[in-house]
Amino acid sequence: MKVAITSSDTQKFTKNTNYTVSEIASRSIVSLLSKSKIQKAEVDGLIVSSNSFEPYLSNIVSEMVGLKPKFSTKVENLCNSGTSGILLAYSLIRSGICKAVLVTGVEKQDSPGNKLIWDISRGIYDMPVHWASLYANNHFQKFGTREKDLALISLKNHRNANKNPNAIFFDKTFTFSQIIGAVEVAAPLRKFDCCYPCEGVSSVLLVSEDLSVKFEQPIWIVGISQSNQGASIATITDNLDGILSTRIAAKEAFRQADLVPSDIDIAELHDAFSILEIIAYEDIGFVSKGDGKKMYKKHRPFTNKRGGLLGCGHPIGATGIDQTNEIVLQLQGLAGQRQVANANIGLVHNMAAAGTSTTIIILQK
Amino acid sequence: MKVAITSSDTQKFTKNTNYTVSEIASRSIVSLLSKSKIQKAEVDGLIVSSNSFEPYLSNIVSEMVGLKPKFSTKVENLCNSGTSGILLAYSLIRSGICKAVLVTGVEKQDSPGNKLIWDISRGIYDMPVHWASLYANNHFQKFGTREKDLALISLKNHRNANKNPNAIFFDKTFTFSQIIGAVEVAAPLRKFDCCYPCEGVSSVLLVSEDLSVKFEQPIWIVGISQSNQGASIATITDNLDGILSTRIAAKEAFRQADLVPSDIDIAELHDAFSILEIIAYEDIGFVSKGDGKKMYKKHRPFTNKRGGLLGCGHPIGATGIDQTNEIVLQLQGLAGQRQVANANIGLVHNMAAAGTSTTIIILQK
Repeated sequence: MKVAITSSDTQKFTKNTNYTVSEIASRSIVSLLSKSKIQKAEVDGLIVSSNSFEPYLSNIVSEMVGLKPKFSTKVENLCNSGTSGILLAYSLIRSGICKAVLVTGVEKQDSPGNKLIWDISRGIYDMPVHWASLYANNHFQKFGTREKDLALISLKNHRNANKNPNAIFFDKTFTFSQIIGAVEVAAPLRKFDCCYPCEGVSSVLLVSEDLSVKFEQPIWIVGISQSNQGASIATITDNLDGILSTRIAAKEAFRQADLVPSDIDIAELHDAFSILEIIAYEDIGFVSKGDGKKMYKKHRPFTNKRGGLLGCGHPIGATGIDQTNEIVLQLQGLAGQRQVANANIGLVHNMAAAGTSTTIIILQK
Repeated sequence: MKVAITSSDTQKFTKNTNYTVSEIASRSIVSLLSKSKIQKAEVDGLIVSSNSFEPYLSNIVSEMVGLKPKFSTKVENLCNSGTSGILLAYSLIRSGICKAVLVTGVEKQDSPGNKLIWDISRGIYDMPVHWASLYANNHFQKFGTREKDLALISLKNHRNANKNPNAIFFDKTFTFSQIIGAVEVAAPLRKFDCCYPCEGVSSVLLVSEDLSVKFEQPIWIVGISQSNQGASIATITDNLDGILSTRIAAKEAFRQADLVPSDIDIAELHDAFSILEIIAYEDIGFVSKGDGKKMYKKHRPFTNKRGGLLGCGHPIGATGIDQTNEIVLQLQGLAGQRQVANANIGLVHNMAAAGTSTTIIILQK
């Protein structure tokens, strides 16, 4: 049973508003349904991805938008929640339990996840920027990566965000000098090397092969895989050269898709910190280990055309969904100002907590 | 691809202890793995079912017990969380993504869920007992059910709990007079018509057909279905005779299993309130609508031999798992003092929030 993504929706990422998490989720679902050829009665699954504490959230949202799905639940997997929800939706369709599953990721700006309180091995250094700075320092020393390389990643993604009206930094332009001269947060990472937690919502609709015929441009999930290596940086690796969960998940997704990294036309990468995009280039296999800094000069694959987490903001439970949404729009030719030419195959890279878990999704026209 | 449950574990339900939710979950997983023929490296999925607010809980638990699963997430679906997790695990195996998925339900006593704060249609009557009392009053008026009938359900389940060392009321005996004379909570429901929120953990291991050969007594999932009708009582029905989500889920599970209610030897029913067991008899189809009160005189199916939520306590995210655990043990002949004779087919009924959602699982030797 093949599984396609046929429809998607993202609402503008913002600072905290007065809307509740269920109101925000409902807005995106109503918008998706209004644009899509699916009927409410056909939607037989709803998964809500969120770090919100609201109990019974998926059923509350179901009721608000008028769905009565065969299956509904909330999932929470920190920054990796969104693609965990998509993997489960894929599984529900592949197994024949459902035919059309909506996955909605939603977050308030003040949702938890900005402190990794359980990672006691790092003492007071419990903010995610501290583990990212360890990876950055190692990459600098071992592979000659420099602050300039990080700044160029941040500049690229912020410029991409200027073409994405849903990005929180859509209206904000930054120069290379502003980025490389910004205040240091945890050396060598500076302010614009770090993503900005925000409020946001994004939805995708997954459907079975037989239901896909009623949609004009189904985008197929040809590879999807996750790897979970632990929950804290001290346990996942004996070196900081790369992120094992990304390597494992990518290898398996490429195996399923029978593709190689050079087949990818466009990729959304989990740039919670600029260094992570460079490391993702390497771990996914676009370039050799240590060569990440050379990749921004290449034209293929296009990376983080959405603006990345750096340019869009990071509504935790919604990020993996909006990354997927971007690839779907690009492969459908519906990405507006951000559209790249001849995009046939795309990749999503979504991860959590020091790279302790990663999901990779490969999508094809 | 057939899916079996091969192993299970439940730890004693208690009042709140000083253990964290991840420590409690880990204890059950370590116990299950020590009793089971599965190797840690073979467990390629972990789903943690909980209403706890701990972020990234499933990966924290993975790390604590030494698992590195291909897939891991937390699910939350209020009182229906446990079987939502089992349905997802079933789906992950059926779809070929995983071969062995652990589902662990865990809850602290003070976890949320005792107030249905979003159900604004009920004003200050936001405790679950208030919707249960509506169902009870309707049943009394329409079908002649009486307080005695409720008390007999409570008595049966508390007596069953006296044979279940994991039940919170294992050591407590109650007489019919104590139950029917207990303080009124919301008429006609009295103290022992209501389940007791508690701390608890329960785990089941689901495996693929090919992996099942290494286990002695795989118990097969032959029907599994969920129905979600909303999130608040006012939206789910125009009468209070029964619970629509239970009727829909049961009908579909029996269809999948190619069985009828009279085939069921033993059932675990969601008796959060005594009246709900009577209504479940009817909605699942063991008896006709209105005849629930007659069923406790029957020998088949045996119901709530575990003690039910009334006798065991109700650790929200763990309840659906322990209900399933009980049926697995009974079909394996490993239910100790509670063992019923010649049990070949069992049913689990788990629901949430005024019966707005129900999951039904049918298991067969």
